[in-house]
Amino acid sequence: MRRVLAVGAHPDDVELGCGATLLAHSAAGDAVTMLVMTGGENGPGDDAAVVGRRAEQQEAARTLGARLMWGGLRDCTVTPDAATVAIVERAIEETDAEVVYVHAPDDSHQDHRAVAAATLSAARRLSRVLHYQSPSTLTFSPTTFVDVTAFLSGKLAALRAHASQVEMSAMVEPDAVVASARHWGAQARIGYAEAFAPTRMVIDLAPAPLPPVDELSHASRRPRSAPLSVALY
Amino acid sequence: MRRVLAVGAHPDDVELGCGATLLAHSAAGDAVTMLVMTGGENGPGDDAAVVGRRAEQQEAARTLGARLMWGGLRDCTVTPDAATVAIVERAIEETDAEVVYVHAPDDSHQDHRAVAAATLSAARRLSRVLHYQSPSTLTFSPTTFVDVTAFLSGKLAALRAHASQVEMSAMVEPDAVVASARHWGAQARIGYAEAFAPTRMVIDLAPAPLPPVDELSHASRRPRSAPLSVALY
Amino acid sequence: MRRVLAVGAHPDDVELGCGATLLAHSAAGDAVTMLVMTGGENGPGDDAAVVGRRAEQQEAARTLGARLMWGGLRDCTVTPDAATVAIVERAIEETDAEVVYVHAPDDSHQDHRAVAAATLSAARRLSRVLHYQSPSTLTFSPTTFVDVTAFLSGKLAALRAHASQVEMSAMVEPDAVVASARHWGAQARIGYAEAFAPTRMVIDLAPAPLPPVDELSHASRRPRSAPLSVALY
Amino acid sequence: MRRVLAVGAHPDDVELGCGATLLAHSAAGDAVTMLVMTGGENGPGDDAAVVGRRAEQQEAARTLGARLMWGGLRDCTVTPDAATVAIVERAIEETDAEVVYVHAPDDSHQDHRAVAAATLSAARRLSRVLHYQSPSTLTFSPTTFVDVTAFLSGKLAALRAHASQVEMSAMVEPDAVVASARHWGAQARIGYAEAFAPTRMVIDLAPAPLPPVDELSHASRRPRSAPLSVALY
Amino acid sequence: MRRVLAVGAHPDDVELGCGATLLAHSAAGDAVTMLVMTGGENGPGDDAAVVGRRAEQQEAARTLGARLMWGGLRDCTVTPDAATVAIVERAIEETDAEVVYVHAPDDSHQDHRAVAAATLSAARRLSRVLHYQSPSTLTFSPTTFVDVTAFLSGKLAALRAHASQVEMSAMVEPDAVVASARHWGAQARIGYAEAFAPTRMVIDLAPAPLPPVDELSHASRRPRSAPLSVALY
Amino acid sequence: MRRVLAVGAHPDDVELGCGATLLAHSAAGDAVTMLVMTGGENGPGDDAAVVGRRAEQQEAARTLGARLMWGGLRDCTVTPDAATVAIVERAIEETDAEVVYVHAPDDSHQDHRAVAAATLSAARRLSRVLHYQSPSTLTFSPTTFVDVTAFLSGKLAALRAHASQVEMSAMVEPDAVVASARHWGAQARIGYAEAFAPTRMVIDLAPAPLPPVDELSHASRRPRSAPLSVALY
Repeated sequence: MRRVLAVGAHPDDVELGCGATLLAHSAAGDAVTMLVMTGGENGPGDDAAVVGRRAEQQEAARTLGARLMWGGLRDCTVTPDAATVAIVERAIEETDAEVVYVHAPDDSHQDHRAVAAATLSAARRLSRVLHYQSPSTLTFSPTTFVDVTAFLSGKLAALRAHASQVEMSAMVEPDAVVASARHWGAQARIGYAEAFAPTRMVIDLAPAPLPPVDELSHASRRPRSAPLSVALY
Repeated sequence: MRRVLAVGAHPDDVELGCGATLLAHSAAGDAVTMLVMTGGENGPGDDAAVVGRRAEQQEAARTLGARLMWGGLRDCTVTPDAATVAIVERAIEETDAEVVYVHAPDDSHQDHRAVAAATLSAARRLSRVLHYQSPSTLTFSPTTFVDVTAFLSGKLAALRAHASQVEMSAMVEPDAVVASARHWGAQARIGYAEAFAPTRMVIDLAPAPLPPVDELSHASRRPRSAPLSVALY
Repeated sequence: MRRVLAVGAHPDDVELGCGATLLAHSAAGDAVTMLVMTGGENGPGDDAAVVGRRAEQQEAARTLGARLMWGGLRDCTVTPDAATVAIVERAIEETDAEVVYVHAPDDSHQDHRAVAAATLSAARRLSRVLHYQSPSTLTFSPTTFVDVTAFLSGKLAALRAHASQVEMSAMVEPDAVVASARHWGAQARIGYAEAFAPTRMVIDLAPAPLPPVDELSHASRRPRSAPLSVALY
Repeated sequence: MRRVLAVGAHPDDVELGCGATLLAHSAAGDAVTMLVMTGGENGPGDDAAVVGRRAEQQEAARTLGARLMWGGLRDCTVTPDAATVAIVERAIEETDAEVVYVHAPDDSHQDHRAVAAATLSAARRLSRVLHYQSPSTLTFSPTTFVDVTAFLSGKLAALRAHASQVEMSAMVEPDAVVASARHWGAQARIGYAEAFAPTRMVIDLAPAPLPPVDELSHASRRPRSAPLSVALY
Repeated sequence: MRRVLAVGAHPDDVELGCGATLLAHSAAGDAVTMLVMTGGENGPGDDAAVVGRRAEQQEAARTLGARLMWGGLRDCTVTPDAATVAIVERAIEETDAEVVYVHAPDDSHQDHRAVAAATLSAARRLSRVLHYQSPSTLTFSPTTFVDVTAFLSGKLAALRAHASQVEMSAMVEPDAVVASARHWGAQARIGYAEAFAPTRMVIDLAPAPLPPVDELSHASRRPRSAPLSVALY
Repeated sequence: MRRVLAVGAHPDDVELGCGATLLAHSAAGDAVTMLVMTGGENGPGDDAAVVGRRAEQQEAARTLGARLMWGGLRDCTVTPDAATVAIVERAIEETDAEVVYVHAPDDSHQDHRAVAAATLSAARRLSRVLHYQSPSTLTFSPTTFVDVTAFLSGKLAALRAHASQVEMSAMVEPDAVVASARHWGAQARIGYAEAFAPTRMVIDLAPAPLPPVDELSHASRRPRSAPLSVALY
């Protein structure tokens, strides 16, 4: 069982960037957490929009089999300072994450840049930090891919959970999501793919330790409750 | 069980570039093959040097738990033409390789460049092609690492098998091999690492299919004869 | 009226890389020529396959409104030497080309690399050299795009003309062609796009010189025979 | 008629980076606007220096045939936050710009970096964003050029309008301006050029729609008042 | 005698990045200054930790033969704004520096990024700005090296002066320092090296002017008080 | 006294790329050798053109204070194979070169690419290999510069020695040579510069050993016959 943390600046960023990969993690029995840095502001007098976005994000996380954490920052004000770094550090610590997914650093949205930079700082001791692409990402030369053929419809479902957000944003176009997955899939010589540019990625070649036999003898093929701890990277 | 092919231009190139990673593959029960493109010329009248190099390379392959294939080309004459591509294609076909390791393309040695180019062509339909560094490699910006702390002494042993080669080459310095492993290890936030720049690398997140229970109940921790088929990438 | 030359290593390379852009050129009244370096070998005893490929390529060129030139080289044997450079030089001279489209230089197919290199040499005095992507292209970071929404179905028709070729090649997948056009279109903030990485691209901002009035007064909207000479780049 | 917006951090930045290109746009009948983010502070008690700089910038804009807009920020304090993005968004909206010129993102001056980043964000839905070079620009690999042979003396005249600024800055050297234009011109295989690195650049190959004939029959060669609407990119 | 300024964000950053090179400068009779931007906060009520760190940094500077300057900023709060630029500008002015060493710009620590950016701005008129690597540096492709074989133990001694800092930081590992020096040394075809990526580096090929003969006739081999003014770059 | 080798594919390539730097080396008393790979073919029946080019190249070398070596290859036929590597290896051995200047590797002329690649191979054990720009060079991001203000007219004189060559080549334009020197000089914050991209460059910071005093007491300022051995890099 891997411990996975995906960080995004706004509601729906994580789903767009690596939603199908998170579904693949969930299907493999991994512990998946999403940290959404803005959009879920707390406090007295939350207006309806915030409440709505929070509910949508919660539903999207449920769709992906992921736990949801909020960063508590405000849209369009994120800076990569020590406070932002600390938010990501706490999420890494709390989830004991082994692998972190986050925005690519070269992005025209200032919040995306700030979240990427702060996450690189917070994850400075981790061996696996992978960057995903957003519609506003600028340079992006991915070398690492995940086959998401089986999870693409689930990704679209998670995006549909963000009904209000998708309506607002002219840049989230479902057909472009599918097209990019097919484009990267062709690059990766598979069907559909999500694409990643790693800052660093340690691959673990060791076979998984065998579980106790009596546990295994009752195992279904993809046992959620007692997953085979597979050394995937 | 993964099927792994490592391609190098000359005897000892593969060991220098990814020898410890091949040991990690062997330890995981993978089927490892080395294709050495030059240095093992066949024919009547093989002189003693060729025979000696072939024996050394065979011993090094044995040390790594790898099968050895020869490309049959001559040192310093390799070109990335259709004939060279065909040699690598045959090795990929014969081994049914899923992952290929090869020189980085930007290298000051013409044979290294040619072997990298020919292998990229031969592996055009494979989803996992990773480039290793040689002493003559020029630009190299690795993002993908394998923890080789447990396999570094084995790598040095494989290099020592090339006694005549190592004496000849001023560029193979064992202390630099260890230093680079530590340098890349620090980059990867682990102990010692071999470093790779992927052309493309598809990670497989699915859990391994469970073997039949009665087979497992007798399994040792790392069963060589009946390896757990682990989905590592 | 612009004079356009598109160079490709094999039948269907040009159509895959920039077929829709050539259609846009043709629709604008430009003089479009395709130079296919291999696959149309002349001589006594042409076998049926060559004759068939030549007919298919001729039909594809007709579909794109382009003149067809053959380089006369043999598949998988192209090298970027003086003879190959001379073939492209002659095509540039004969067509008086102002803009050249050709493979991206970093490609795993040796013929593609060789054709890109030879064309860069032959076009050394031209101010507009743009590289297109092939399925075997490696690094590719396009910055320049052409809106091909109106021409995508024409591109697919041109590809279908290569019936024998498409059957042979596992790497030409029509749905991936459409997906990449949509992917690049999203990058370019338009619908569907072909993507280019320029070696150099001079944009001409001057308005077109006005044609004589009596000629214009009879002009249809897109007069092929007396096209408005538009300064497009 | 194209609608062009050029954004610079300080008075004279736009002229230095793309002044001759703006002259070429003006000569082609395009609507050209300059947005200068700092240096024109409003308010009671404007001191003489500010008034002088504003007059100089106004004169330089007039020389280029451009409309002038001020961003209202203060020199050396620009940050790429939401407020700065909003200033550029308003200018894009007000001018309905189709193409935006701005500083290259990698620049040692913090204001230049901030203006480039904020403009990339504000122009996130535009298909044409081109970066120009400043004396403080760091990495810069231009691929796109405009022939400015006919406009170089006009550019120098616009720079001379900034008499106080040029005296202040040791980094604005007219001979270096001319030398760089010739250097880039040689790269572009033309005489003198301004050089651009596009974030994205969509080229429009369609011929311009023909104007009504009776208008044309009276047209001078470059009719400013009724310019031929040329599809330049 | 060269005038050298090395800038670092925190105590021990300069020593880690270019400590041995500074020792080589000192040995050559150059005037070496270190500017440490944070960690030496002044004021009433300095706590023991600050006092301790300041003493350690002073001792490390003494070990390197360098003068120590403090930037007076606070750890984890550095931004590349005009105030930070001014601190570095003052140090450049006061030392009349000809060459500046500083962090590489792409670094996961926000203070490192900010110090690199501010130094590039402050040194905008200098002809020699070289970037060193820190454990948190991300992309780094050095081309310029200094042979530090004779100075590596001195570098380790300077690092040991930071006893409290080294204990705190899991990322400063002496064996990794030595390994990286050997790794870069192999890249540079020498023994041990520190590696630099220059923003710009002007090499001075002129021979040193000869000192007056009667001065020379009493000269020791490395005369500190009347050093031979050697044109090193 | 440094031992310098500059390698070029054709007559005048070295002068164009680094002629002024070679003059600076000569002025500093260094031993400068030029290796021109093609254009000086030997043998019975040399035609007048070859004889003329050889005389011109000899005169240009004399102008630069350099020894001339010929590679003996034929224009437009250079390949980076073992034979070409051996030619450069012999020149390195014979001159005992410490620093090598050569074409940049990414160049549209096949001979330039081949000479760059072969020289990188031949110089694989040297610590100083610097690439210069030619008119046909493609990507080029120099970081290292030599101030050539005092040597630019000498460079132009050396180029004028190639009267027949310069007439032939439309790409050698003296005003562009001067403009590029000024452009790079502005980048380097000096007057006029030649620009270099190093593959690797080791800087030697040690002061020069003092010559014996009685030799010095007779020394002129720039003693050619007994040059001060200056440790320049």
